[in-house]
Amino acid sequence: MVKYISILGSTGSIGTSALDVVAAHPEHFQIIGLTANENIDMLEQQIQTFQPRIVSVSTKELANTLRSRISTQTKVVYGEDGLIEVATHPNTNLVLTSVVGVAGLLPTIEALKAKKDIAIANKETLVAAGHIVTELAKKNDCRLIPVDSEHSAIFQCLNGENNKEIEKLIVTASGGAFRDKTREEMKLLKAKDALKHPNWLMGAKLTIDSATLLNKGFEVMEARWLFDVPYEKIDVMIHKESIIHSLVEFVDGSIMAQLGAPDMRMPIQYAFHYPSRLASSFKKLNLLEIGSLHFEKPNLEKFPCLHYAYESGKIGGTTPAVLNAANEIANALYLQDKISFFDIEKTIYSALESHHNIANPSLEEVLAADQWARQYANQLLVKM
Amino acid sequence: MVKYISILGSTGSIGTSALDVVAAHPEHFQIIGLTANENIDMLEQQIQTFQPRIVSVSTKELANTLRSRISTQTKVVYGEDGLIEVATHPNTNLVLTSVVGVAGLLPTIEALKAKKDIAIANKETLVAAGHIVTELAKKNDCRLIPVDSEHSAIFQCLNGENNKEIEKLIVTASGGAFRDKTREEMKLLKAKDALKHPNWLMGAKLTIDSATLLNKGFEVMEARWLFDVPYEKIDVMIHKESIIHSLVEFVDGSIMAQLGAPDMRMPIQYAFHYPSRLASSFKKLNLLEIGSLHFEKPNLEKFPCLHYAYESGKIGGTTPAVLNAANEIANALYLQDKISFFDIEKTIYSALESHHNIANPSLEEVLAADQWARQYANQLLVKM
Repeated sequence: MVKYISILGSTGSIGTSALDVVAAHPEHFQIIGLTANENIDMLEQQIQTFQPRIVSVSTKELANTLRSRISTQTKVVYGEDGLIEVATHPNTNLVLTSVVGVAGLLPTIEALKAKKDIAIANKETLVAAGHIVTELAKKNDCRLIPVDSEHSAIFQCLNGENNKEIEKLIVTASGGAFRDKTREEMKLLKAKDALKHPNWLMGAKLTIDSATLLNKGFEVMEARWLFDVPYEKIDVMIHKESIIHSLVEFVDGSIMAQLGAPDMRMPIQYAFHYPSRLASSFKKLNLLEIGSLHFEKPNLEKFPCLHYAYESGKIGGTTPAVLNAANEIANALYLQDKISFFDIEKTIYSALESHHNIANPSLEEVLAADQWARQYANQLLVKM
Repeated sequence: MVKYISILGSTGSIGTSALDVVAAHPEHFQIIGLTANENIDMLEQQIQTFQPRIVSVSTKELANTLRSRISTQTKVVYGEDGLIEVATHPNTNLVLTSVVGVAGLLPTIEALKAKKDIAIANKETLVAAGHIVTELAKKNDCRLIPVDSEHSAIFQCLNGENNKEIEKLIVTASGGAFRDKTREEMKLLKAKDALKHPNWLMGAKLTIDSATLLNKGFEVMEARWLFDVPYEKIDVMIHKESIIHSLVEFVDGSIMAQLGAPDMRMPIQYAFHYPSRLASSFKKLNLLEIGSLHFEKPNLEKFPCLHYAYESGKIGGTTPAVLNAANEIANALYLQDKISFFDIEKTIYSALESHHNIANPSLEEVLAADQWARQYANQLLVKM
């Protein structure tokens, strides 16, 4: 069965990898919609190649410019409404949510309301509103198929298994760009130092989130929602080679693991073609070449953001949205060299301390907490 | 549903581990029959504990002695007929075949004819007559559930997967007791040097088969039959920690692996309770304690028996039975210190060279080839 796919965030790292997968299997995948933020040059090329029905960009101006450049029948829309129009297009049956940040939340919810399956690559959706999104997916009988290599690994480990027999999920982490740095060294490290991440090709925001290990904390929170497993049963393990993408321990002590070359096209293709596998020409993993794999405990004193994520997750309510929003602000300012590496964790800590949690919040309450945390973080960082 | 289990070879290493599993879960498992070769002291204790309906020993004399010692209603039988009576007992629905050597073949076939599921721990059954046994299991709709840690791992990796999407099976090997020895050193090594195997508790015959790597060759041949995958798609990888019990690579490049502490009770319990998992109190695997895992290519020049196994498997017919029988003779004589380590591989090579293969043999032809190879090996070794 052909999957008719819309990609939210098609010019980013996940989006372009996804289009590689689509291009390699035109008999299985067809593009209905694409969205980009500002990179209309790349989007224009993607339109030529994939001939989507609809695309969306961030502003009216960019939409006008793009419209004047293309010769296809593609409809060009813009803004949040545009994103939602692409996500809910009647011809789409699968939406890949690879936009960055909490911006992915509303389009995901609208896509679920329109009964689309979601290939979920936008972490913030589950971090900030996991309870709402998973309930909606369940109610509308939509699949939430993970695209992150870690969650795809867990998802694959659970193939044919009973989730009630899970003893523990073990999410692996490369350890991020500053894994081998001391706290003393981290103080002075700039975003550019992080942007040479050792194992995976990924976007700038994610690279910084990896360096603080907050990204791993987000993944723990996503895992909690995707697999309905309490935080007490989710561990993080540092595995610098990024070969074992994650593991599941079962009640009988047996552990299943999924391994692969660090190439996002593999979990993307798996999500697109689930439940069956498609032959691929990606570089295959050769364990003999790699020779050895290593495992370590994460150091929560060195990387307190991971600890904040666990604590926020356990508190639940609006707290995870605050964690995420404070980080989005601090992360962006760090990328612009305006604050130091430790200002990220300080901002998060301070926002979490000042927040009044609301248990079992509505979507509006989640979005209000998000807004509150952004303002709070901005004000705090101005003073720093 | 309670499983009513008969164990062929209950006093050996697998047999006693299996009884540990049964004792830990009396609500799930009940013993119907047990068999031993000569160790009637241990069998007597097992009869007291598990109150089987029927037991079998190797000779009439041992059966008489045992009968005089026990106070239970247990029927005592003996010899090959006794083994078959236990394997086909009407109250049994699962037979664990943990006898050593080709002696396991006929009882397995009779059990399958009587429509019993098989928890298969007797390798020689599939090595010598894989085509007959798997066809019979299929015809009678019986499960062949692997108990070997390697095959259990592959079986678990294939949970919820499509066997047509297998790219490769990767069978791991500890490397055996002589892994780090040179050929020069091996020449002088005695069976007692091998019997301190590093990772697994196992019987003497198996320990020697591990030292020659022929055991791994047998496992490749078993995998070929259990999972219906050609030899070209089955690799062996040396993994000295014995933590990853085996792996499956799929057509999309994704690799699933099963890991666990080296404890045979885990795969035995899995086979007994398949398809669902039972909580266990076995020592759990802690990857952080282990810290690293290593992988190497097997050295076929140092361990030619592995090569002979692949070649015999590819030839098929009666050749694998000859490989196995020649090895059984040589292995036993090496255990008695009557021949040298290299005499094992020489005996196998010579028997394979002298054998006239019969393609697609009947059970009688397999057993005749087995007999021929035993005589050949014995005569050859007398001369050595």
